[in-house]
Amino acid sequence: MPTYTAPVKDHQFLLHEVLKVAESGIPGYEDLSPDFTTAVLEEAGKISGQVLAPLNAVGDKEGCRLENGVVRVPTGFQAAFDEVREGGWTGIDCDPDFGGQGMPGIIGTAVAEMFSSANQAFTMYQGLTHGAQSAIRVHGTDEQKAKFLPNMISCTWTGTMNLTESHCGTDLGLMRTKAIPQDDGSYKITGEKIFISAGEHEMSENIIHLVLAKIEGGPEGIKGVSLFIVPKIMVNDDGSLGETNGVTCGNIEKKMGIHGNSTCVMLYDSSTGYLLGEEHKGMRAMFTMMNEARLGVGMQGLAQAEAAYQNAVIYAKDRLQGRAVTGIENPDGPADPLIVHPDIRRSLLDQKSFVEGARAFLFWGASLIDQAHLLNDEDADGLVSLMTPVIKGFLTDIGYNMTVQAQQVYGGHGYIEESGMSQFTRDARIAMIYEGANGVQALDLVGRKLGAGGGKYVMAFFDLVKTFISENKENEALTDFINPLKQASKDLQAAGMFFMQNGMKNPNAALAGSSDFMHLFGHVCLGLMWGRMAKASVEALAGSPADPAFYENKLLTGRYYMARHLPATGMHLARIQSGAEVVMTMDAEAF
Amino acid sequence: MPTYTAPVKDHQFLLHEVLKVAESGIPGYEDLSPDFTTAVLEEAGKISGQVLAPLNAVGDKEGCRLENGVVRVPTGFQAAFDEVREGGWTGIDCDPDFGGQGMPGIIGTAVAEMFSSANQAFTMYQGLTHGAQSAIRVHGTDEQKAKFLPNMISCTWTGTMNLTESHCGTDLGLMRTKAIPQDDGSYKITGEKIFISAGEHEMSENIIHLVLAKIEGGPEGIKGVSLFIVPKIMVNDDGSLGETNGVTCGNIEKKMGIHGNSTCVMLYDSSTGYLLGEEHKGMRAMFTMMNEARLGVGMQGLAQAEAAYQNAVIYAKDRLQGRAVTGIENPDGPADPLIVHPDIRRSLLDQKSFVEGARAFLFWGASLIDQAHLLNDEDADGLVSLMTPVIKGFLTDIGYNMTVQAQQVYGGHGYIEESGMSQFTRDARIAMIYEGANGVQALDLVGRKLGAGGGKYVMAFFDLVKTFISENKENEALTDFINPLKQASKDLQAAGMFFMQNGMKNPNAALAGSSDFMHLFGHVCLGLMWGRMAKASVEALAGSPADPAFYENKLLTGRYYMARHLPATGMHLARIQSGAEVVMTMDAEAF
Repeated sequence: MPTYTAPVKDHQFLLHEVLKVAESGIPGYEDLSPDFTTAVLEEAGKISGQVLAPLNAVGDKEGCRLENGVVRVPTGFQAAFDEVREGGWTGIDCDPDFGGQGMPGIIGTAVAEMFSSANQAFTMYQGLTHGAQSAIRVHGTDEQKAKFLPNMISCTWTGTMNLTESHCGTDLGLMRTKAIPQDDGSYKITGEKIFISAGEHEMSENIIHLVLAKIEGGPEGIKGVSLFIVPKIMVNDDGSLGETNGVTCGNIEKKMGIHGNSTCVMLYDSSTGYLLGEEHKGMRAMFTMMNEARLGVGMQGLAQAEAAYQNAVIYAKDRLQGRAVTGIENPDGPADPLIVHPDIRRSLLDQKSFVEGARAFLFWGASLIDQAHLLNDEDADGLVSLMTPVIKGFLTDIGYNMTVQAQQVYGGHGYIEESGMSQFTRDARIAMIYEGANGVQALDLVGRKLGAGGGKYVMAFFDLVKTFISENKENEALTDFINPLKQASKDLQAAGMFFMQNGMKNPNAALAGSSDFMHLFGHVCLGLMWGRMAKASVEALAGSPADPAFYENKLLTGRYYMARHLPATGMHLARIQSGAEVVMTMDAEAF
Repeated sequence: MPTYTAPVKDHQFLLHEVLKVAESGIPGYEDLSPDFTTAVLEEAGKISGQVLAPLNAVGDKEGCRLENGVVRVPTGFQAAFDEVREGGWTGIDCDPDFGGQGMPGIIGTAVAEMFSSANQAFTMYQGLTHGAQSAIRVHGTDEQKAKFLPNMISCTWTGTMNLTESHCGTDLGLMRTKAIPQDDGSYKITGEKIFISAGEHEMSENIIHLVLAKIEGGPEGIKGVSLFIVPKIMVNDDGSLGETNGVTCGNIEKKMGIHGNSTCVMLYDSSTGYLLGEEHKGMRAMFTMMNEARLGVGMQGLAQAEAAYQNAVIYAKDRLQGRAVTGIENPDGPADPLIVHPDIRRSLLDQKSFVEGARAFLFWGASLIDQAHLLNDEDADGLVSLMTPVIKGFLTDIGYNMTVQAQQVYGGHGYIEESGMSQFTRDARIAMIYEGANGVQALDLVGRKLGAGGGKYVMAFFDLVKTFISENKENEALTDFINPLKQASKDLQAAGMFFMQNGMKNPNAALAGSSDFMHLFGHVCLGLMWGRMAKASVEALAGSPADPAFYENKLLTGRYYMARHLPATGMHLARIQSGAEVVMTMDAEAF
C-alpha cells in the first residue's frame, strides 16, 4: 500500500529561501518564522502521513453509498474528519473573527497540498467548505456571515458549490434551476444539479449549499444567474437547526476516481434559499473565488504527482530487476534495483523536477493572492489572474502525466489496484476536468487574460523574466538555467506575437493554439521558478550550510528540468505557428 | 454507452491504395482483391459493432469472478465467443493444414484491430490463443502440432503465455518455477505464475498453457529457461480429454482495466508439461513470436484510441455548449455543438491524425512480417524487428494519451463510468505495460535493434525515408509533407549520431535518451506513412474518384499531423542531446 511523507524541507526552502516570506512585506507574513512554519508543517505532515494516507485506499475501495437517502462515507472517514476539525486545520487561513486561525493563504495552500497528496477525496470535503465560506465571507451580509461562517470554518457544517446541470457545465447560461422570490425576501429554489462534490453525507451536522439559479422573470442566459445559500437543514435565528429544506441526494455518481468523495445529483424541491450578493450577479460572485479555487485544483495536480512519485522512488530502490549496463551495482543481490537503469531515472527525474517546480509556482501564486487581498494590490491581482489558468491547466495536465509515469515504474504491478498506483492516476484525472476543463482554462488565458488591462499583466510577467535573466546572466553558476529560460521565454514571446498579428483578423488563429500556449507559458513559469530556486541554492551553498547535499540536489533537479522539460516550448511554438487553417478547415461531417 | 463502427473504408484505402497488396508479390496477397477484403472486413465490422462492442461495458462492470475454483466470465461473453469461433474468425490467418483459413497475417491484424476496438478484454482470449498456437506451430514437434493446433485454431481450446512471477517480470532469469524431467520424456512443472491473461475460464473445453520454467540442474539465470506445453486437462492420444493436471487458478487480480479478461495467478503443482523446442532455449522460442505479439499490443494502442475518438466525435457534434467565436453556427439551438470550438477540433485532430497514421504504420509492419515469413526475406525481417519496439512503445504511449484526450472532450461526463470514456483509458493503459513495458521497448530499440546487422536495418530505414523524399520533392501537392518529414528525419539522424558518438564511451548516454528516441522514431515513421497516404490521395484525386472528399480529408488530416505532431521531434532530440549527466549524476538516496 502506498505511503506518504510530507516534504516539509522542500516547503520550508520555498517559504524562507526562495519567497523569503518574512521579508515580503505582506501583512501576516512577518509572523511566518522558520520555527513557526516548521511546527505547523510537521504537524500537518504527521496527520497527512498517519491519519489521511492510510484511508486513501479505503476510500477508493469502499466508495460512498446511498442507502435510503443517507450517504455512507468510507470506513474511518468520520473519525479522521473529526480529528482534522478538532485540530483547527479546516480554518487555518480563515477569518479569526469567525473562529479561523487567521494565517495567510500560503500556509493554507501548503497544508492543503499535504492533505491532498495523502487523500484527495477526503480533503475535498473541507476544501469545498473552504470555498463556500470564502464566497459568503466576500459576498454575504453581516447576518449571513454571523449565521454561517463559524460553523463552516470549523466544519461543523460543510459546504458545496452547485453549478453544473446535466445539459450544461461550461455554458451555465443554459441552466434551468429556478428561484422564485418570496414575500419574506427569501427564494424557493427548484431544480436538479449534478456532479456536486461532497453534496450529501453525514460527517457534518448540516450542509450549506451554494446554488446557482435563475430568478423567474430575470434576464435570459448567463446574465440572469444568481447565487443562493441553500441549507440542507434550516437554521433558526438562534443558530439551532430546524426543519429539513427539501434538499435531497438523487444519486451518487460512479466515477473513475475520488471514490471516497460523494459526487451527488442534488435535487432542490422548493427549497428555501437566500440570495448571496446581488440579483443576477451570480457569476460575478462565483468568479471572485475562481482564482483561489483554480489554484486549489492546480495544487491537486502536483499533490497527486508528488504522492505517486514518492512511491515510485520507493519501488525503484526496492525492486531488483536486471543489471546496470555499466557494471553490477548490487553484487550481493540477484539483480540491481530499478533505479540504476537510465530510463527509470529519466522517468523519476521527469516527475521530481516537475513537482518541485510546480510547487514553487503554486506557492508563488498563493503569495500573490495574499498580496492582492491583504495589500489590495491590483498588479499582484492582475498577475495572478493571468497565471491562474496556467496553474490550473498546466499543473493538472502534466501532474496527471507524471502519475502515469510513476505507475509505469511499477510495471505490471502498477496495473493491479492493490499497488495503489492506479488510484493516483484515476484521482488525478478529475483535476484536468473540474473547476473549468483545461481547454476552458486555455481559452480563458488566450481569450481573456492575455488582453486584460490592455496587456499590462502579461507585459509585467515578461518583465519579471527579463529582469531575472539580466540580473543573473553573469552568474556562471546559473548558466544552465539562464540560457534555457531565455530561449523558452523567446518562444513564449513569439507565440504572443503570432496571436497579436493573426488573432485580430481571425480569433481562431489564437484559439487553435490556446492549449499549446498554456503549456508553453507553464514551462516558462516553471523555468523561472527553477531559476529562482537555483539562485537560492547557489547562495545557500556559498554560506556553508549544514546540509549542502540538499542544495546540490536542488541544482541537479533544476538542471534536469531546464535540459529535459523546457525544450517542449519549441514544439508548442511550432504547433501554434501552424495556425488555424489545419484546425478549422475540415467539415464537421468528415471527423 | 459508447458505440463502434469499423473503419472499413480506411482499411481498404491502406490495403489497396497505399500498400497495394495485390501487386506486392507477397504470396497470398494476390488473392486480396478489393471485393474480397471488403467482404471480410465488413463482416468483421458487423460482429465488432453488433456483438462485441455492446459487451465491452458489461465486461468492465461485471469483471471475472473466481468461485470455488471456477472462473466466471461476464454475461454474454460465452455466447459471443461461440459466435466468433463458429464464424472461423479465430483461425483467419492460421495454417489451413490445421483448420485455419490461411489468409495473410495482415488480414488477421486488420480484423484484430476491429475486434480490439470493440472489446479489448474479450479479444484477448483469442489473441493469447493465437500467440500460443504460433509458438507451437513454429517450435512444436509434428505430434504436438497434430495434438494441439486444430483445437487451438478453432478456440475449442484456448491458450496462454506464462512468463511473469511475482518477483520477476522483465528479468526472467530470476524465475523459480521448476521442471523435473520424467522417465517418459515429459516434465513435472511446479511453481506460481502471475498476471496470466485468460489464465482460467470455462469458455473453452481446455486451456493449453505455455509455461517458462527452469529444468532442474540446468544453467543459472536466463540461459536455463525452457518452454513447456502444460494442458489444464490432459489430452489422451486419441485426442479426447483425460485427467486434470494440477493446474489451478489461485486468484484473480483486481486491475485498473480489461476487467472482462481473467488475469490469473496460476499454480502448477507437479503438472505434466511437454518441452516445446529445445531445453534451455525457452527465451529463443518466446522471442520468435515477439514481433508478432508486440505488433498486436501496438495495435491495441491505436484500437482503443480509434474507439475513444469515434465516441468523442459523436459527443462533440451532439453536445451544445457555448457559441463559435466567429459567429453563431446553430441559430435554432440554445448553443453551438462543441465541434465548432477550435480547441475541441485541435483535440479531435490530434486523435484522428494519430490513429490513421498509426494504422498505416501497423499495416506496413504486418505486411513486412508476412513478407519476412512467406518470402523468407531477411531484410524485411530485420526492418520490422527494428520497428517492432517502436510500434509497440510509441503506438501504446500516444494511443493512451489520445484516449485521455477523447475522454476530456466529454468534460465531467467523461469522468463518470456510465459514459464509457474512462474504460477506454483504463483498458488502453495496460498496453504500455505488458509484452515488455515501454521503457524495455526503448531499451530494446536503442540497446539491440539499432546495432543489429551492423546497423544495416536502420540504414535501410533511413534510405526508405530519403528515397521517398527525393522521389517526391518536386511534387508541389506534397510540399506540406515532404518538408516536415525531411526535418524530422534530420532530427532522427542527429539523435542516432549522438548515440554513436557518445554511446560507445558511455552506454548511459544512449540509454538516457532511449524513450525519447523511440518517440522520435515513431514520429518519423508516422510522418513517412502520412507522406505515402498523401501521395496515394493525390494520385486518387487526379483520377476523378467517386468520393473526392475522402481523399481531400485524408490530405487535411495528414497536413495536421505534419504541422502539429511532427514538431515533437525537435523536443525529443534536445532531450537526447542533453546527455547522460543530468540523468545519472544524482545519488539514488537523493530521489
